[in-house]
Amino acid sequence: MEDNRISYHTSVKTAYKRIKEDGLTNIWDRFEAQGLGDPDKRCAFCMGGVRCDFCSNGPCRADASKDKRGVCGITADGMAMRMMLLRNVMGASTYQYHAAATIRTLRKTAEGKTPYSIKEPGKMKGFAERLRVDTSGSEQDLVFRLCDFLEKQWHLPGYEESAIVKALAPEERQKVWKSLDIFPGGIYSEMMMATSSSLTNVDGYYVSLAKKAMRMSIAMAYQTQIVLEYLQDVLFGIPRPHVFRTDLGVLDPDYVNILPNGHEPFMGFALIEIARKPEWQEKARKAGAKGIHIIANIETGQEMIQRWEMDDVFYGYTGNWIMQEAVFATGAVDVFVADMNCSMPIDPIYAQKYQFKLLPVSDLVAFEGIDERLNYIPEDVKIQAEKILDMGIENFPKRKSQVKPLTGLPVQEAIVGFSPESILAALGGTLDPLLDAIKNGSIKGIAGLVSCTSLRDNGQDVHSVAIAKELIKRDILILAMGCGSAAMEVSGLCDPKAAELAGPGLKAVCQALKVPPVLAFGTCTDTGRCADLVAAVSAALGGVPIPDLPVVAAAPEYMEQKATIDAIFALAFGLYTYVNPVPFVTGAPSLVKLLTEDLPGVTGGILHVEQDAVQAADAMLAHIMTNRKKLGI
Amino acid sequence: MEDNRISYHTSVKTAYKRIKEDGLTNIWDRFEAQGLGDPDKRCAFCMGGVRCDFCSNGPCRADASKDKRGVCGITADGMAMRMMLLRNVMGASTYQYHAAATIRTLRKTAEGKTPYSIKEPGKMKGFAERLRVDTSGSEQDLVFRLCDFLEKQWHLPGYEESAIVKALAPEERQKVWKSLDIFPGGIYSEMMMATSSSLTNVDGYYVSLAKKAMRMSIAMAYQTQIVLEYLQDVLFGIPRPHVFRTDLGVLDPDYVNILPNGHEPFMGFALIEIARKPEWQEKARKAGAKGIHIIANIETGQEMIQRWEMDDVFYGYTGNWIMQEAVFATGAVDVFVADMNCSMPIDPIYAQKYQFKLLPVSDLVAFEGIDERLNYIPEDVKIQAEKILDMGIENFPKRKSQVKPLTGLPVQEAIVGFSPESILAALGGTLDPLLDAIKNGSIKGIAGLVSCTSLRDNGQDVHSVAIAKELIKRDILILAMGCGSAAMEVSGLCDPKAAELAGPGLKAVCQALKVPPVLAFGTCTDTGRCADLVAAVSAALGGVPIPDLPVVAAAPEYMEQKATIDAIFALAFGLYTYVNPVPFVTGAPSLVKLLTEDLPGVTGGILHVEQDAVQAADAMLAHIMTNRKKLGI
Repeated sequence: MEDNRISYHTSVKTAYKRIKEDGLTNIWDRFEAQGLGDPDKRCAFCMGGVRCDFCSNGPCRADASKDKRGVCGITADGMAMRMMLLRNVMGASTYQYHAAATIRTLRKTAEGKTPYSIKEPGKMKGFAERLRVDTSGSEQDLVFRLCDFLEKQWHLPGYEESAIVKALAPEERQKVWKSLDIFPGGIYSEMMMATSSSLTNVDGYYVSLAKKAMRMSIAMAYQTQIVLEYLQDVLFGIPRPHVFRTDLGVLDPDYVNILPNGHEPFMGFALIEIARKPEWQEKARKAGAKGIHIIANIETGQEMIQRWEMDDVFYGYTGNWIMQEAVFATGAVDVFVADMNCSMPIDPIYAQKYQFKLLPVSDLVAFEGIDERLNYIPEDVKIQAEKILDMGIENFPKRKSQVKPLTGLPVQEAIVGFSPESILAALGGTLDPLLDAIKNGSIKGIAGLVSCTSLRDNGQDVHSVAIAKELIKRDILILAMGCGSAAMEVSGLCDPKAAELAGPGLKAVCQALKVPPVLAFGTCTDTGRCADLVAAVSAALGGVPIPDLPVVAAAPEYMEQKATIDAIFALAFGLYTYVNPVPFVTGAPSLVKLLTEDLPGVTGGILHVEQDAVQAADAMLAHIMTNRKKLGI
Repeated sequence: MEDNRISYHTSVKTAYKRIKEDGLTNIWDRFEAQGLGDPDKRCAFCMGGVRCDFCSNGPCRADASKDKRGVCGITADGMAMRMMLLRNVMGASTYQYHAAATIRTLRKTAEGKTPYSIKEPGKMKGFAERLRVDTSGSEQDLVFRLCDFLEKQWHLPGYEESAIVKALAPEERQKVWKSLDIFPGGIYSEMMMATSSSLTNVDGYYVSLAKKAMRMSIAMAYQTQIVLEYLQDVLFGIPRPHVFRTDLGVLDPDYVNILPNGHEPFMGFALIEIARKPEWQEKARKAGAKGIHIIANIETGQEMIQRWEMDDVFYGYTGNWIMQEAVFATGAVDVFVADMNCSMPIDPIYAQKYQFKLLPVSDLVAFEGIDERLNYIPEDVKIQAEKILDMGIENFPKRKSQVKPLTGLPVQEAIVGFSPESILAALGGTLDPLLDAIKNGSIKGIAGLVSCTSLRDNGQDVHSVAIAKELIKRDILILAMGCGSAAMEVSGLCDPKAAELAGPGLKAVCQALKVPPVLAFGTCTDTGRCADLVAAVSAALGGVPIPDLPVVAAAPEYMEQKATIDAIFALAFGLYTYVNPVPFVTGAPSLVKLLTEDLPGVTGGILHVEQDAVQAADAMLAHIMTNRKKLGI
């Protein structure tokens, strides 16, 4: 297989060779087997989003050119948007599951029943004030009052306007959303309404379905993403910039390596706290290891590394989801701790081959052939984490003696931990230096890059890195989120040295501030936080409407359903949104027109799909330059 | 097209001819155009349930025979069950939307803000007592306390056991569900967990996914279906047996015909109340009509006709969803009032051709090209219903002058309105006569027939009627629910005369009690109510486990996602469950084995799939006879 079909990263290419030598199924070969690199082998109806198997009258295929419809009469446009809406429900739901677990954790922490603590009482108070929640009384009082308020808001019916969205979203956006009847109620009702609308014979109209997707995305961004990220900050610390080790070289086979993986950092943070105790390191040494390393992975990893400093225990971060099998193939994994998502169904096969323990710690996660689990319970997490460390120590001698490790893998340092607060702090407490750099053109604009990674057009991260390089070359500063952030970190673009790759204006700013041109801004869940920052920029510029800002959103390698709802939110938020690979909508001409041509006149957002990195970056720059002109800068 | 590919009903066959003459797209031709009668034209992967387009690495196809998996590594079994789970979420969600609207309506009624009243205070009190809700104070106090309790229960997290399920489900089932870890928490959390589990890279294990489907179905049956049906009884009356006119002949073109359609009866009941006022009938006469008829349709119609008597205003019931276009083609429709589901995306084309007003009255429903809507609001429903009647009166002269009506269509009478209470009343206040008839073998067993109607194997209702005839011939009493109930009513099987078609034992019982061999038991939402009745039978027999009862569930023509979750619940409840058409799981051999072979050892349920009516009925009888033997009767 061609190198650039595997990955941007040398480490992963090396691991792929080992997997092949070991004769294991792997994502690259499975991708090839689907014939997905070859358009002729793909199903044209699936690719175009114009097939449906919801009901027993199907499966149906639609063809817009002949007005050929499903048995129920649904059009090609309706089919494609309805399935898209359902994907968005999956994304919203999974984010909300995480938010509910965060509130559960916060409550139990305030009750003193977890090993965690309220690390940022100031942030909690400030957030409560923004939400107009009474902040009087003790810290515990405030936790309970805030959690009660948030849960009550989540459960509002769809016909009552969300007070969270009212308190947090820009005024200008709220007006637009109300005029379109997409101002949401509570998130649970919004998910229920979107899901119910997807039922056979309910809503077959692509415009209505698209509006429902947007409405749910607004509920999700403010009620779910912002709430969960800010409350995780309260519990575990606001992200602040610091250096972190990344890439497969962080896996040292001589250590007991415990890898929290998924999206929820709760178990991961508990593992670090306990593993940092000398007695646990000693226990590992007695088993023949040099100690215990907690190694962060994928989005759980981003949640962790953006908040906590590395040391000899919390040792490193591997990368994003496509390299999961490569991580295993290093032969250095003892326990893979699988929380709510991003653990592949194939993992049991790797666990057997490379002798590690695959352990679900969320009731969402399950694998064929894996019976043992430890579903996260806040009040039990200390004991649970201890059990996991014990599993790792017990696993070590077996793994060490039976699995030959991959050695000589690289380590790449990255600055992580950018957040609205830490950006503001870096700028001396005001956004003015950033705004001045934008106004004087040193920075042309900002791109929020929130992405996964996908093999559809290229190897892992190949297109994401290409897009990022093209953007910074054009003096566009990047805030990177999600698995796309991992692409940036592992590829070196979050290293201050990468300023050399930036255009002259951005390069000078980066060198002055000693920051890289790509700021690691956390996970895909931080999309909400990013929208909050963009709103602050808008306000600081005197209330410029969001669609008129020199800001774009980019998802160069979106993969799953969290990413699709993030993109839908970006469109509702009024952003120019660059997306790749081509979504499953190409068989739906009216829907494509709505998203790519009509939307600017509706929400102000615009969807741009383009497979070529240079052309995509040019188009993003063109949009930014148009907006700069509009603003007279 | 062959007659038996159209419909069992002569009326629909007649209407089909008219649609063809008028050159309109229609469900039968669209079905043919999909090539669905011809296995070679179907996509084998779609039919087998082994394809996936959730993420951008796809679309993927799996093949269990070669262990060919999706790009993420999901197996054929995982793919098929995951999509099935997602369909079930759609069904649960839509039921729950209806339940939430019911509580909203009940609250506003207690506040005196709707035209409705508490028609069955005794049922409310009894239900509250079963749920262990304090029943002291005024009727209004009880409404608010009960609604608060139910809503709080709905919002329980997944890890807290539902008090509703605890209060309502048979002890024996609860033990089984707890041992399988499928005893549910609140319905919203259960839906969120099921949806989140369907995300890419979360749960790829078919057994786990199947258990999640069952767990959600249990939450849905008790928290959603039973709650909503019992509270609708409280508001609109407990179903009690009475005669009703059915079939297309109930549409008299000389009347203003208003057709509430969907699943929620709220607007429909308000329409009847107002249309019964002489001044409104007079208004219609002034417009040249003979008066106003409210004509019930599909499931909204079942909700209405099971509770309210017919008269010269609430005139008739048409039938189930596949005859929707036939209803329009009678040329006698003035307003089609579309609530939460079962209105086809094709309807606008018919509205234009046959000059009727297509009006969504739920925020779920939307049609391309239809802008006007009146989303149901309990406190506004009187004014909304008046507006709808005015629309109908305004539409009448135009429709009458421009559309030639279909005449000579048949009317079929049916006894409707069976419910646990009314069956008990008919039996003299005790289940004993029914149990005696079962014990002495006059009635061999009971089949809960809950179905839609689907064209996949036959015309509308052809297979449902065939199954019903075969069952009653074998002395199996049928309780019919859902669109399948409409099949029975319109085909004449809910006419006492149909006793002639029953076996000798059942025939004698029917003639003695003056009831038909098929008891119309309401909508698909009444599945929960039916489970409650089956539990009462189990208790009356001294606590026989559900799987050992001489009872089966049958879905001879399941179509959409409410039906699939009803079937999943039947399996969790421990019933032998007959299903047709073949679900999209045939490419998933381990899943098929789980559902058809292993399940008896798990929940006691068993899935049976069979296209031939005689063989299906034989197999159901065999199961019943086995259980009779087990019980020594």
